[in-house]
Order: sequence, then structure tokens, then C-alpha cells
Amino acid sequence: MSEASQRPEARSPRGFVDRRARDLAAEREILTRVSAVYERYGFEALDTGAFEYADALGKFLPDADRPNEGVFALQDDDEQWMALRYDLTAPLARFVAQTWETLPKPFRRYAFGPVWRNEKPGPGRFREFVQCDADTVGSSRPEADAEIIAMAAEGLGAAGLPTGGYVVKINNRKLLNGLLATAGVSSEGQKLAVLRAVDKLDRLGADGVRLLLGEGRKDESGAFTKGAGLDAKAAEAVLAFTAAGAASRSETLDAIARVIGGSAEGDEGLAELARIDAALKGLGVGADQAVFDPSVVRGLEYYTGAVFEAELLLQTTDDKGEPVRFGSVGGGGRYDDLVARFTGERTPATGFSFGVSRLASALRAAGRNLGREVRGPVVVIAFSQDDMGEYFKLVGELRAAGIPAEVYLGASGMKAQMKYADRRLSPAAIMLGGDEVAAGTVTVKDLDLGRELSAGVTDNAAWRAERPGQQTIPRAELIPALRRILEA
Amino acid sequence: MSEASQRPEARSPRGFVDRRARDLAAEREILTRVSAVYERYGFEALDTGAFEYADALGKFLPDADRPNEGVFALQDDDEQWMALRYDLTAPLARFVAQTWETLPKPFRRYAFGPVWRNEKPGPGRFREFVQCDADTVGSSRPEADAEIIAMAAEGLGAAGLPTGGYVVKINNRKLLNGLLATAGVSSEGQKLAVLRAVDKLDRLGADGVRLLLGEGRKDESGAFTKGAGLDAKAAEAVLAFTAAGAASRSETLDAIARVIGGSAEGDEGLAELARIDAALKGLGVGADQAVFDPSVVRGLEYYTGAVFEAELLLQTTDDKGEPVRFGSVGGGGRYDDLVARFTGERTPATGFSFGVSRLASALRAAGRNLGREVRGPVVVIAFSQDDMGEYFKLVGELRAAGIPAEVYLGASGMKAQMKYADRRLSPAAIMLGGDEVAAGTVTVKDLDLGRELSAGVTDNAAWRAERPGQQTIPRAELIPALRRILEA
Repeated sequence: MSEASQRPEARSPRGFVDRRARDLAAEREILTRVSAVYERYGFEALDTGAFEYADALGKFLPDADRPNEGVFALQDDDEQWMALRYDLTAPLARFVAQTWETLPKPFRRYAFGPVWRNEKPGPGRFREFVQCDADTVGSSRPEADAEIIAMAAEGLGAAGLPTGGYVVKINNRKLLNGLLATAGVSSEGQKLAVLRAVDKLDRLGADGVRLLLGEGRKDESGAFTKGAGLDAKAAEAVLAFTAAGAASRSETLDAIARVIGGSAEGDEGLAELARIDAALKGLGVGADQAVFDPSVVRGLEYYTGAVFEAELLLQTTDDKGEPVRFGSVGGGGRYDDLVARFTGERTPATGFSFGVSRLASALRAAGRNLGREVRGPVVVIAFSQDDMGEYFKLVGELRAAGIPAEVYLGASGMKAQMKYADRRLSPAAIMLGGDEVAAGTVTVKDLDLGRELSAGVTDNAAWRAERPGQQTIPRAELIPALRRILEA
Repeated sequence: MSEASQRPEARSPRGFVDRRARDLAAEREILTRVSAVYERYGFEALDTGAFEYADALGKFLPDADRPNEGVFALQDDDEQWMALRYDLTAPLARFVAQTWETLPKPFRRYAFGPVWRNEKPGPGRFREFVQCDADTVGSSRPEADAEIIAMAAEGLGAAGLPTGGYVVKINNRKLLNGLLATAGVSSEGQKLAVLRAVDKLDRLGADGVRLLLGEGRKDESGAFTKGAGLDAKAAEAVLAFTAAGAASRSETLDAIARVIGGSAEGDEGLAELARIDAALKGLGVGADQAVFDPSVVRGLEYYTGAVFEAELLLQTTDDKGEPVRFGSVGGGGRYDDLVARFTGERTPATGFSFGVSRLASALRAAGRNLGREVRGPVVVIAFSQDDMGEYFKLVGELRAAGIPAEVYLGASGMKAQMKYADRRLSPAAIMLGGDEVAAGTVTVKDLDLGRELSAGVTDNAAWRAERPGQQTIPRAELIPALRRILEA
């Protein structure tokens, strides 16, 4: 083999991405702002390790050689299987089970960090992404759900979504359970089929879902999907339930009460929603931020009580500028049996989770990208090795004034240095030749102006007058001049 | 099997830790402050994925079944071996090789995030920890080293180390190489033995190192360590070199010039240090922050030019209050052949890296723990379900005023609620009974005071007069009262 062919190819593994400054700045800003909200709500930070034992993650299959379905797993020296966490809930359950006796209860924690899914990567589908979760463990009160909902709404607002640009939709698993009990449906398979049918409301409308709730439905291609097998009356009751959403939470409660019949579980679900409504009112969360919506079924299989889904309402556009429906930007709910996997005891818990990159994408798609624009540093052009000391003194002054700055440290000439500054999105390049050092002056080239002119954003002649592209000024005036460029 | 024995045990994998709010707050504050410094220096953020292909990491052994020496590796669906990154330099090399044509050059990036080492865990030795790196790729100028050094020093200061509490020690591989060339030593094995001997200066002193530079040394147990095999004159030259550190950088340069003899490589190393010194002077970095120290050899095997080591000078104590020498809190240097693994072309690079938890430990050990104290929320005691709306209104007001607050949401009585607030390190508990709601008042219990009294920090009688442990006040006065407690 030649030496070259022995060299590894430089490529990142499939489904993993390198993220540059612009994306990172937006995601860090989201996490900083959301963390501040969560801490104001009394949630404390927790960070667990990347690995969990596979049995603790619940992905260990006794029959399989490797527990690698959906997770990245490997065997430790002592033969135990470990896997990278696929969400932040499973590590929380393990942590809580492990430390329960020592924790203040209820235990309120938030966490963010990467999670890993061993799935087929595709466009926009990554095998590593950052999640941000908040959960209350050890409270069965519906008010704990309400706090999570209020906090999710406030967090999304802090992340940059305007009021009215998103809404948290709330449902409760017990309502549909109660409705189906009244209709005589008790098999889990049938319940699941009902949930799957209702989940297609957006796509198929009430008529399509009616078929799926009953015997089944043939699609355009002729393929037949078997239905849930409800009788006509039960199917109508389910459809009436899913349509019970109204403008205000209390109207929706009334509408639900009229359709779900008087089962014990349904009444319990209604009572829980009523308490959530009261707590949200106390917290000042109106219908512009949180509504009851019986058509929300995502996660109902998993959750045991209240379910939340945060939906983006803002108009968004795709890469080609076409309007697209963005959909969910987070979700959660009450799950009372996760810790029981370890302890055998049911421990009430409720939480909310969102994908940080996905929220950043939503904000970008809605033209609401957060935070400071990522700017390059002011670049001091390196003309002569002899003046390096002067260049460094200058960048030291700029940095001390809070202005990012650097001396060009490559080996190229003036033109390449200017190109470098432009590619870094530098606001300005500074020229400090021997004559200027002697005269106590400095020449500033406004690169922002150059970019605006070449993009046709500004009128050339009008701007030239008051904003010269390049000017030689006394050194004492440099920092104010740079601030004017940065703030322009 | 019984149901209980089928339950997984709740435990975290060996060598992985759960980190709670206090540690996380300190580490996040370090990263926030250091990032701000690095960005002022014109370094841009980069985040690569957790996995790299094993061949790109340089840990793939063609003979071995699994490339698992020191790394966590697993095979992807397509049979390619991937491994979790063990540092942030290898992913940088891969990224730079992959994107070189599109990057602004020199490329200056900083990064932080977890790295993973598949090593035997032990006390204080973890298999996952957070590193923070900054590197300049594509500049062979010694001024690029100087920038890294200045930035490391400023970053450590921003992280909480006081001036004089740490120092960046600088050496250059070329100096010792030149010295040994003059002494006729050219074998890599002998050079390595010299480095290992010099690395023991702290522990063995000059006499012990003299033996290790020559034929060898027998320790107290009688075990013999073979030496580097230098003749007496060469050994003395090495020892004189390592002792050439002086109070100022220019004096050290003079002292080194006197001892290393006139080899081409040694002169090159000296010239590089002189340019580093000039740039550091321009940047205002004095001998209180960065010194030349020829006794620094750690990493000399790996680096190709300048080497940096940041050492803590502050007095530190261990858990028992005993003084301990903390040592290094970070290091780096110039490595000109890392990208060449992929491209076949030497690409000059220089950088600095520190462990975030280790720096946090250093700050803690020196009594300089950073950032805000981690406080619990103000806890509103839950007396009655009927008043829940009032409680939530109150916490909403406190949160809007920036005061972390929560309603107790467990099922326990008054005493357990107070205990909960105490364990959360809440500054205050608030009681809002029916009478108080009617009267527009609120009762505040100062839990900080309680903790101070029980710790014997304050004089009971004197404090009671001006700082009542519990007081009932008009609701409009609540926020100012809480601020007084928080600021006390």
C-alpha cells in the first residue's frame, strides 16, 4: 500500500454533524434563557453521564446477543452492557431510584445535553441531538402538571417565540379511557387502535377517522387499514370528544363533560383538568398560551394522565421560502410508573421535553432567530514583523474594551488578509503601517459597509457621504469609530 | 424468578458520575466566562459529534479484533468502527482536514464538551469529563503561540484565579533537541529517556535526575532504573538547561542562550521564544502570568515546538484541610503534524486545553469557588387546596420579580414542608393562610437566619432585634423583605 492510501479519510460518522458558531450561539442562548426560567420555577440542574447500564435503560433484550435496538451499546470490561442514553427521562428515573432517600421531595430537576439514537440517519434526522427536559418527581397533584405547562410556555417565550406564536395543548389520558370504558371497550389493543385513528385527524379528517374507528378504511391505493372495531355510537362519541376543544379552557371542560359520559376515570380526568386550569389561572397563563385540546393523542400510549404538546403557530417557511406547518416543538405529560421499574413502587412524575436544535430551527424558520448575530473579530492587518508588538498592543486595547479582535497570523499578503477578514464576517479591518504608528493614527476599513454595498442593501452615494468606507483617524478615536460600525 | 429480582438495580456505570446543581453552576460559570474571553480573541465556537470513526481517531489497531484500547468503540451497521472522542484535538484535526478548503485561514476555534476514556476508574478518575480547548490551525508564527498563552492566562483569570495565583510556564521542544544534538545524542529512545528523567526533577531533585541522565538509579527499595546513558558533560548541560529559569522572561532567554550551545535547532527554539516574549509584552502579559521554564517537559514527546503548562500557585487544601500542591490546571503546545495524518501535508497548529471539573476543583480547593451560590427557591407552604390559586398567584409575582419560588406540591404536612424548604437551601418559607389572604398580609420565615443561628454563625440575641426569624407583613412589602433576606 502507498502511504497515501494508508491515510484515513477525514469524514464524520453517518448521522453526526459538526456545528459551527452561528448554530451554536443560537442553541446556547436558548439554553441560557430557558435555564433561567426553570431555575426561577425552583427546578435544580442535574447532569448524568452519557452511559447507563443497558438494563437500567430498559433496552436490554435477554434473547439478543447485543442490546443494540435503537441505542448505541457496548460491553464494559466486566461484561456488563452499557448504552448511551437515548433520552433524559430514563437516566432521571435511574437517578431518582438510586438516591430517593436523600432527595428533597418532590424532586424538581431540569437537565440538558446530548442524547443518542442508533437509527438510520437521513436529511434532518441525526443520531445525536441536544434535549432539554424538566420534571417533577414525587407529586401526584395536578398543580404539578400545571407548573410544568406554565414553565414550558414561559420557557418557549424566553427562547424567542412571541405570545400567540405558540400554544401548549393539554389533554388527559383518563378522559378517553373513561369514554371507552363507558362504550364497553376495555381491550388495550382496541384502545391503541382508537389512539392511532384519532392521531390521523389532521390528515384524514373526521370522515376518514370515523372509518378507522369502525371496521376500517381503504386508501386511494386500495390498501385496507383494519379499524378499531367500535360500533357507530362509540365512534361518534370519540369524534365528538376530539371535537370538544373550544376557545377557552373552561368552555372546553364543559364541552368534554357533555360528551364523555359519567365513568369514574373520565370524571377523574375532568377533575384533574379543572385543577390544572385553576393553577394556570393563578399563574396568569391564559388561553393564548395553554389550551385544552382533546384531539391531542401523541404520547397517550406512554403517559398515564395529563399530556402536553407545544405547537408552533407562527407562519414558517422552508429553505425555498415556501410556507410549511412546523408542528410540535416539544411535549410531555404525566408518567407514574417509570421509577417503579427499579423500585416496584409507583412514583408520580410529570415533565416536559424539547429538542434544542429543533426549537432553534423553528425560530429560524419563523424569522425569529435568537441572540446576538455571530460576528467575526476586528482584524488588524499584519504588514511587518517589526510592528507586531504594536499590533498586539492594539488588539489588547480593543479586547479590554470588549471588542473581539485579532492580529492576522497567517503568512499571506494584504489582499488575502482582507479576504480572511471578510470571510470571518469581521466588522472592520485595521491598518497600522509604520507611518501611522509614527503619526499616532490608524486606518479603519468598514467591512460591514462593503458587504452592504455589494449586497445592494444601501444606496452607494448617500452612504458614502456620512459613512466613509475607509478613514484614517487618531488612534484615540478608534474605539468610538468601531462602536459606530458595530452598532450601525 | 420473583418480580423483584427481575428489576434492574439503579446504579450509574463505573467511572460515570451524576453532577448536582452546585458543581454544575460552577462549571457553567467557568465555561461562560472563558468562552467570552476566547471570543474576544477572535476564536469561533465549534461542536463536533461525540463519535469519530476509529481510524480517524488514530486508535484503530489492524491486528486487534476491537479498537478498544483506551476508547469506547463500537461497530456501526455498516461494519465501520466508531469510537467516542477521547479529547477535542483529534476531532478538530478531522474537521480541519475535511473542510480545509472552505475555512478562513488561520482557523481559530474553541470547543468544550465531554470526552470519554475507557480506563480503569478510581477515586477522582472518571471515564467522562468536560474539556475546553482553543487552537489556531494554519499559522506557524510564534505569535500564534503567544496569543494562545495570553488567552489561556486571561481565561484562567476570568474563571476566578487571582493574578499571582497561577502562571503559564513555557518551554520549547527545540531547545532540548538542540542541546542534545550538540551533545551528540540523536536516538529518539535516548531523547525520550532524557525527558522522562527531567520530568522527575520535582520528586528526585538534581542529584537523582543526574543519575537517571547517566547510567541509572537505584531507589530505596533497591529497584534499578536504567538511565539515558548521557556522558557526564551532557548530563550537566541538561541539568544546567533545566535550571535556567529566572525571574523575568528576558533573563531566562539569556540564561538559556548561555547553556544550550550553538545548534541550529536550539537557536530556532530561542528565536521562537524571543518572538513569543515580544508578542506577550505587546499584549501586556507580564512575568506574573507567563514565564519561560526549561524544566517543563510534560507533553514534549507529543509537541513539536512551544509547550505550555498552566500551574496553580494558590495554596490549596484537601478535604481534611491539609495543604496540598494542586499542580497543573491545563496545558498545550504546538503540534505541526496532526492534520498530516489525513492530508499528508504538515499543517502548523497550536493550542491550549483544560479540564473544566479539574479547574472547578482547583478553585474550590483554593477557596475561590466561582459564581453565584446555588440557592433553593422561596417555598410557599401549601396549607389548603382552596387557597392553591392564591399560592400560585404569589409565586408568579415572585418569579416575575426574578426571585426563584415554588408552591410546595407534595402531600406532607407543615413540618415536612419546612424541612423540604430547608433541604432545598431556600432563603425563606412563606405562609399564606386564610386569615392572611383576607387581611392582605403574608408571613415570612427567614430560613437563612435559622441556618446561621443553628450553625452558631451569629449571635442569637443581637440578631433577633433587627432580623426577626418570622414576621407577618403587608403583602406589598413581601418582595423588599425577601430581597433583604437574599442580600443579607
